Amino acid sequence: MQAKDIKNTIEVCFSPHSFPLYPSEDSIVVVIDVLRATSSICAALHYGVERILPVASVLEARNYQSKGFLCAAERQAQKVEGFDLGNSPSEYNNPKLKGKIIVFTTTNGTQAIRAAREAYRIVIGSFVNLTVLCEWLSHQNKNIILLCAGWKDFFNIEDTLCAGAIAHKLYKTNRFETNIDSTLASISLYELAQKDLTRFMENSSHFKRLEKLNLADDVKYCFTPDLAPVIPILEGHYIVPYKNQ
Amino acid sequence: MQAKDIKNTIEVCFSPHSFPLYPSEDSIVVVIDVLRATSSICAALHYGVERILPVASVLEARNYQSKGFLCAAERQAQKVEGFDLGNSPSEYNNPKLKGKIIVFTTTNGTQAIRAAREAYRIVIGSFVNLTVLCEWLSHQNKNIILLCAGWKDFFNIEDTLCAGAIAHKLYKTNRFETNIDSTLASISLYELAQKDLTRFMENSSHFKRLEKLNLADDVKYCFTPDLAPVIPILEGHYIVPYKNQ
Repeated sequence: MQAKDIKNTIEVCFSPHSFPLYPSEDSIVVVIDVLRATSSICAALHYGVERILPVASVLEARNYQSKGFLCAAERQAQKVEGFDLGNSPSEYNNPKLKGKIIVFTTTNGTQAIRAAREAYRIVIGSFVNLTVLCEWLSHQNKNIILLCAGWKDFFNIEDTLCAGAIAHKLYKTNRFETNIDSTLASISLYELAQKDLTRFMENSSHFKRLEKLNLADDVKYCFTPDLAPVIPILEGHYIVPYKNQ
Repeated sequence: MQAKDIKNTIEVCFSPHSFPLYPSEDSIVVVIDVLRATSSICAALHYGVERILPVASVLEARNYQSKGFLCAAERQAQKVEGFDLGNSPSEYNNPKLKGKIIVFTTTNGTQAIRAAREAYRIVIGSFVNLTVLCEWLSHQNKNIILLCAGWKDFFNIEDTLCAGAIAHKLYKTNRFETNIDSTLASISLYELAQKDLTRFMENSSHFKRLEKLNLADDVKYCFTPDLAPVIPILEGHYIVPYKNQ
């Protein structure tokens, strides 16, 4: 048991580019790519996909595809030609995918998972698994790093808002503290935006990118808390749903 | 003259570590280290220091000192032993410094200036020169990058608030646009904090660091707009006050 006066830290890292600054060997890293990789991963596991193999490059995904694997690949917010699946959560609510293994590569999300490979544990976060994830995190007695996937190594607002939502919830448990300003800024932005997340997002770069591609339904799904109450966790090379021991 | 429908971009970079992601050869870079390097540089030039030579290391500063230069050096928020000056703006309101050259090294600020060395121009920003700087920037017809010095390559809140204040003012001129979320987040945080900047800052990491060192007066100075209405600009190796041609 954790002594009441010793708190774990919670830190927000705004992009994989900055992640080497954060010592992670003894921390749980939550990888966040709200639009849309980590929302899709949650959706897939929630709807019954057995496990997901994240790979960093389209080339790797093609290799797996040639060996008969079911593969999802997204670049520049669109499905890469020739692949079975893209990066829309709506594709994963499909009974045919139940029990399957999916190889998965996206513009930012899978790179972030790779960046965090030295961590004690890696889990996947989004608004769609917010409550169940925070409940689990609050009982691990570990320091936590919230790693935003960002956009091509730049800060993005949607991942920051999600990190803010997680930090906001964990702070309330009184089991966490922080030493860095990125956590405080994320919480402030989340508190500012929480009444209407989608409206707050309307000026953001990625929102505009997805809007042009008629992906408004995806955006709505990705910002709705607790639609996919599952904790995706990296076990070896695979992301699987966490099951209580 | 700039066509009315073509806008320049304004982008916020949260730390020198991320700066290589920003193409800067054709941009004006504003280096911001509110607590306290860029506030002190503004104060120094405002009170009559002729020019400042920023150097990245204490060792370089010592070399200059041994050659008879007046040297300022700060590390971990404190004056380095054996130097003439530290990093408190209050030290620079001193008639004896009028017309002098000062060699200057600080924990974060001078590293940020170094990181921006490929930029079209480098100027120094803080709350203490906010209005005069924004007025000047708005007429340059150049893209602008607001480079936050941060804290040892981490995001910090005070530099972000200042970047937000600058972006907020420049947006109002209708001559600027942005493609990245860090600018929008900075503006949101500034708008949230502007009524009482010091109060908003009270939870921040650097504020606590300075408070422990009894530097509350410095903090107050650094957050008061327009106390040192000067535009420090890098000319060759030196920072000098910009003079209208």
